[in-house]
Amino acid sequence: MTESNYPPGPRSTLKRAPERGCYDRPTVHAILDEGLVGHVGFVVKGQPFVIPTSYVRIDDVLYLHGSPASRMMRELRKGVPVCVTVTHLDGVVLARSALHHSMNYRSVVVFGTARRVDDRAEKARILEALVEQVAPGRSADVRPGSPDEVAFTRVLAVPIEEASAKMRTGPPSDEEADLALPVWAGVIPLQLQAGKPIPDERNPPTQQAPSYVTGYRRGAIPPPE
Amino acid sequence: MTESNYPPGPRSTLKRAPERGCYDRPTVHAILDEGLVGHVGFVVKGQPFVIPTSYVRIDDVLYLHGSPASRMMRELRKGVPVCVTVTHLDGVVLARSALHHSMNYRSVVVFGTARRVDDRAEKARILEALVEQVAPGRSADVRPGSPDEVAFTRVLAVPIEEASAKMRTGPPSDEEADLALPVWAGVIPLQLQAGKPIPDERNPPTQQAPSYVTGYRRGAIPPPE
Repeated sequence: MTESNYPPGPRSTLKRAPERGCYDRPTVHAILDEGLVGHVGFVVKGQPFVIPTSYVRIDDVLYLHGSPASRMMRELRKGVPVCVTVTHLDGVVLARSALHHSMNYRSVVVFGTARRVDDRAEKARILEALVEQVAPGRSADVRPGSPDEVAFTRVLAVPIEEASAKMRTGPPSDEEADLALPVWAGVIPLQLQAGKPIPDERNPPTQQAPSYVTGYRRGAIPPPE
Repeated sequence: MTESNYPPGPRSTLKRAPERGCYDRPTVHAILDEGLVGHVGFVVKGQPFVIPTSYVRIDDVLYLHGSPASRMMRELRKGVPVCVTVTHLDGVVLARSALHHSMNYRSVVVFGTARRVDDRAEKARILEALVEQVAPGRSADVRPGSPDEVAFTRVLAVPIEEASAKMRTGPPSDEEADLALPVWAGVIPLQLQAGKPIPDERNPPTQQAPSYVTGYRRGAIPPPE
């Protein structure tokens, strides 16, 4: 972590709209850390697969977990190249012409090669971090994985070899000639928002919801106003 | 469209938790139609790429568009195998034990092979549909693509050869022995919500926002309450 940028390589160098991209570690990490689900790409006999999966980042490594029965876990354990993409939608951009319609978003594309995590202590630490990724503060309240549960669960590490962030913010980019059109143009902000928590009906009657539940929100970066 | 199910093939057959999956056309279509961005997977020299992209479904075909300069458009025009995955996050599932934490979600994985769309009338129809996918009703209000704009924009068709939907709903699935733990368990519903529209400062002063802006929402399927 001595370098503040991920090295742009042939896979991560942005071909299109490079002004929207960056390789800056804090930016990449902030986008990854806000996410709940990444889209994991891998190849089986030339066929691409893209599977939504929860993950957690620790330093410069993404960790995934799953069942031994899943195709993704079976394939990634072989040490194949992986691409993990995390995307946050921040707004619908309504322009005055059809082809300037766009989305405001922040995304990160990570390239790496998965390796198995077999050490029990390391696995237990990662499984705890995966719970914290979903709800910070939660892991202290729940029963940790038993030795059998930890042993049964497959954990993979994807060291971030290359990564790039890409984003769009702000108003529509219209042609000058279109600005006079009598059309409403602008942005509809979007955000993944938490609704009212639904307690499990088997909870003890007096069980109060903790603050990480009642105040649940995603996003270290505030959404565009 | 005489069959109501997509044929499950070797790529789309669910290996893990098959009870959470289905190949039913209306279910697959509803999940696709609610989405704003899909994650498109393709392979270049053995390396997977996963790129977030807007899309629209018409009948049994997904359409993508982009700049001739983008890597994705250049690669997909070659007629390579593609996987497009669309995911909606519906909730965080907080269980009483770490390893039963989960997400409520609906996702679709589509497999197909991209083909170029070069016919100008077909391209224009698809570009209009792409605007409608983002904001139904919008295309009638905006300047359509000029012949040059349409000619410059690359459009790809991905016929849905195989597709599967997968979802999880409902409360946590805890071990019987954990039900007595003094832990709040339940679901925090999540939904992509629209905020207050931000008019472009170059709008005419009296320009009113249309109802598809002021009432913007995603989702034909109501979110879990």
